[in-house]
Amino acid sequence: MKVSELGEFGLIKLLSKIASYDYKNRQLLVDLGDDAAAWPGSNSISLGTTDTMVEGIHFTDKATRLELGWKSLAINLSDIAAMGGIPKYALISLALPEDTDVEDVTQLYQGMVEMAKSFHVIIAGGNISTAPLLVITITIFGEALKEGLLTRSAAKPGDSIAVTGYLGSSAAGLKMLTHNMHFDSKTTTYFKKAHLQPEPRIAEGNILVREGVRAAIDISDGFIADLDHICEASAVGAEVRVNDIPVHHMVKSHFPDQALGFALSGGEDYELVFTTAKQNIQNIRKMTDCPITVVGEIISDKLAKVTLIDEKGRSIPWDRKKGWEHFKEQ
Amino acid sequence: MKVSELGEFGLIKLLSKIASYDYKNRQLLVDLGDDAAAWPGSNSISLGTTDTMVEGIHFTDKATRLELGWKSLAINLSDIAAMGGIPKYALISLALPEDTDVEDVTQLYQGMVEMAKSFHVIIAGGNISTAPLLVITITIFGEALKEGLLTRSAAKPGDSIAVTGYLGSSAAGLKMLTHNMHFDSKTTTYFKKAHLQPEPRIAEGNILVREGVRAAIDISDGFIADLDHICEASAVGAEVRVNDIPVHHMVKSHFPDQALGFALSGGEDYELVFTTAKQNIQNIRKMTDCPITVVGEIISDKLAKVTLIDEKGRSIPWDRKKGWEHFKEQ
Repeated sequence: MKVSELGEFGLIKLLSKIASYDYKNRQLLVDLGDDAAAWPGSNSISLGTTDTMVEGIHFTDKATRLELGWKSLAINLSDIAAMGGIPKYALISLALPEDTDVEDVTQLYQGMVEMAKSFHVIIAGGNISTAPLLVITITIFGEALKEGLLTRSAAKPGDSIAVTGYLGSSAAGLKMLTHNMHFDSKTTTYFKKAHLQPEPRIAEGNILVREGVRAAIDISDGFIADLDHICEASAVGAEVRVNDIPVHHMVKSHFPDQALGFALSGGEDYELVFTTAKQNIQNIRKMTDCPITVVGEIISDKLAKVTLIDEKGRSIPWDRKKGWEHFKEQ
Repeated sequence: MKVSELGEFGLIKLLSKIASYDYKNRQLLVDLGDDAAAWPGSNSISLGTTDTMVEGIHFTDKATRLELGWKSLAINLSDIAAMGGIPKYALISLALPEDTDVEDVTQLYQGMVEMAKSFHVIIAGGNISTAPLLVITITIFGEALKEGLLTRSAAKPGDSIAVTGYLGSSAAGLKMLTHNMHFDSKTTTYFKKAHLQPEPRIAEGNILVREGVRAAIDISDGFIADLDHICEASAVGAEVRVNDIPVHHMVKSHFPDQALGFALSGGEDYELVFTTAKQNIQNIRKMTDCPITVVGEIISDKLAKVTLIDEKGRSIPWDRKKGWEHFKEQ
């Protein structure tokens, strides 16, 4: 069987099984497959996460090397944010062609350093090797707050489902960049930043943990796909009111037909989706300037899936494999 | 300027400078560029190291996927060994083509698990993504012993230079595999294992630290290249008696003309080269079954380089760029 037939998530499950040979006895604090690994340190819980970006797959020449450096680090920090932790140290592994311009590599590093500085992360080391194409692998080592962790497996029926910020802006930015669309400078800046320089929600993740939230994930694959991960890990269902999904007005006005599709399955927003008792939401809103929007509820559901509903509470058909674009055509 | 003109070590220096924006204030315990990063944990020093293996560059189809998994983890553990630490957790990042056989990936993981088990390392998480070719990046988190660390910068004039095990066996194995050479089964097994399944010297690294050794590196680039790193980081020179370099009898007998070249610059032996006061050597030998061979002395040398000497103490010319093969032809 080919990897493409099994799928990414199927492969992760299979490899987790092989890799977890005796981890039940060895104090891993979250299952393999959560946003980050967690293990007990002497005074706090240690977090570790790693992510790879491959030229031509995860990035193209639409991004400057500075933006690429920023984003490479940001998406890893986002995994720490999704655990409610504090990032501390980064290890950078670069594989690159020998004819790469040194200036490109230093720009890449400058982008990482900018991002690292703003989150007080130390680039502690790394590795450089040769490859036919640029591959960036970043590992972050962090710490959990003493109050606890955000995991994918802690959602409970009755919880409200909420998201930070706006969804779909990154996909809109990608569309603009790949289709060479031209907007006014303010719009262009917003879309570019949304796609190329996402802000990891570290502060918000910390607030969530302190306010008693325990279930969250960051939106990298897309809102529905990532909420599905919570449903599966928590063995619950999710009912999402599509009309409540927060979409930025620039996305709505420039991509009126695609906005909701971008928001539901565009991915790479690096916002947090979390679940918590309804009464916690107001307290969380008081602690942050970041928009917090309730978009649905966790329900009991043996299928452990996300259901979309319209303003009248009717279920909206959704093809998990073919995604939103397919759904739209129905 | 291209990366190839600056060279790997030049690039590392340049990037370290960019990345170390304020690390002097942030408690990194070793310089960027040591075998692993080290930072203070609450009760012990934390170690982190990462390494990438790229298909066609670092491995070919001469290795089974099981052997490749083993080696990928082993070379990372070796970096922890070179710090005298204990490896604890591994994060595995795989980038692979979609048409990869699932069996190949599970075999790769089995190899990692075998290696992980024998050193009590937990595979705590990782990441899977698509790429046009297989790229394996492994990150290890470990802990230093309370007695201290092995670093590249602690060698002192007057120290003896010693190595664990035998040098050149890995290069001999590579030669056998790439040139389809046939030997008896015992020899074949020895060479294959030396190249494809090196044993990280974790136990030996721990013994060195406990016996007061503070300067070491693992041999990945080659004995001279790696000892050069110690010389540079410690601002000392090294005088090496080539006749004392430990070369396994199988390498000597099957590659009589190349054996010393393999040992001096072949690389990938993953043995430790360390420096310490002469009187420590006997105590270290008592603590381990691993051969410990003194091969030279650390000297004061403003050029901070390795000098090779023959049995009469005469300096042997050595071309750093063209390596041993060039030297041999003189």
